[in-house]
Amino acid sequence: MDGYGAGTRTTPTRLRERARYDRETVHAVLDEAYICHLGFVADGEPVVLPTIHARVEETLYLHGSTGSRPLRLARDGLRVCVTVTLLDGLVLARSAFHHSMNYRSVVVHGQAQLVRDPEEKWAALTALVEHVVPGRSAGVRTPSARELAATALLRLPLTEVSAKVRAGGVNDEPEDLSLPHWAGVIPLTLVRGEPQSATDLDACIPTPDYLVIS
Amino acid sequence: MDGYGAGTRTTPTRLRERARYDRETVHAVLDEAYICHLGFVADGEPVVLPTIHARVEETLYLHGSTGSRPLRLARDGLRVCVTVTLLDGLVLARSAFHHSMNYRSVVVHGQAQLVRDPEEKWAALTALVEHVVPGRSAGVRTPSARELAATALLRLPLTEVSAKVRAGGVNDEPEDLSLPHWAGVIPLTLVRGEPQSATDLDACIPTPDYLVIS
Repeated sequence: MDGYGAGTRTTPTRLRERARYDRETVHAVLDEAYICHLGFVADGEPVVLPTIHARVEETLYLHGSTGSRPLRLARDGLRVCVTVTLLDGLVLARSAFHHSMNYRSVVVHGQAQLVRDPEEKWAALTALVEHVVPGRSAGVRTPSARELAATALLRLPLTEVSAKVRAGGVNDEPEDLSLPHWAGVIPLTLVRGEPQSATDLDACIPTPDYLVIS
Repeated sequence: MDGYGAGTRTTPTRLRERARYDRETVHAVLDEAYICHLGFVADGEPVVLPTIHARVEETLYLHGSTGSRPLRLARDGLRVCVTVTLLDGLVLARSAFHHSMNYRSVVVHGQAQLVRDPEEKWAALTALVEHVVPGRSAGVRTPSARELAATALLRLPLTEVSAKVRAGGVNDEPEDLSLPHWAGVIPLTLVRGEPQSATDLDACIPTPDYLVIS
């Protein structure tokens, strides 16, 4: 299988030409983004919370605490919508109407389950740390039994998945091209700055290689 | 009133010490973020979509097209949860458990209404353009009647609102401080690059002052 296939919930109601279902696009967005927005229904009301995630092959793991609401609700499985959005640019057209943004987003629908198996939990936690900083999981104190118990994780299969991508330049109306207004794209990039050591860090500990930006 | 007050839906179930209800914090997050994540319930299922927003005093306007699902659902008012998240840094503790992120987020619950009044619609569209690039609304072709009709906007009052802020350094367990692991913060910043003029832009049109990054 090369893609996820368009389903009822994953076919956008507008701008369908921006929709993508191939795994390469979906994986790239999920892997690049530091956070996702987790949506669920609580007492009939929509709730959207930011959290961190990690993809392990065709499973998405979501981080939380055992006290948090989605994780308490998820004991018996919870319908969720997880959305990940990367911003790539501001698109300034000659007309207000055609202003847009360049972005890559992924929407995952499904039934989230609480991870109970200790080995899966450990693997998912490792994946979460590696997702944020590849190489980091080998340079930390691993979780104690108490910490593992205090960390809750949700598992969501990547089955109902779609991506949307807007890239490129301005799409103005032909009759607007001669207007005296500037048009173009302002690129947006999430930039990682220089690592700032903790004030109480032992001065003998160097900045690890995996943090050096090449 | 200086703040929004903690309510049932706006009191976080965990890490309450990170919660903020003052208007200054909430406004700053809403105004800085380019996009929000709009959550609603459709056919009993949670849906989370990225979109753009603009704050006008104590009202949040959300952009869409008349064909999009939340806007069709909102004809009679739609319960929504709008979440805005700004990432400020990766917090790398000595233990995997205390890894965290520095962020500022705002969650708004409420009943979203379709904007029907043409004057309010025009003002909200102007606010959306100004939100993304201050100064821009004076340098574009304004919307035609057809374009105005094709643009749908939701209005959401800022009443049930809360912010959450995590800032600062690493919080490690005292017994972990002597471990040989690097600890610290990696700052994250969304950077605007140099404006890239449209390939068909008249060469006589200079880059506007409002796009020059100071």
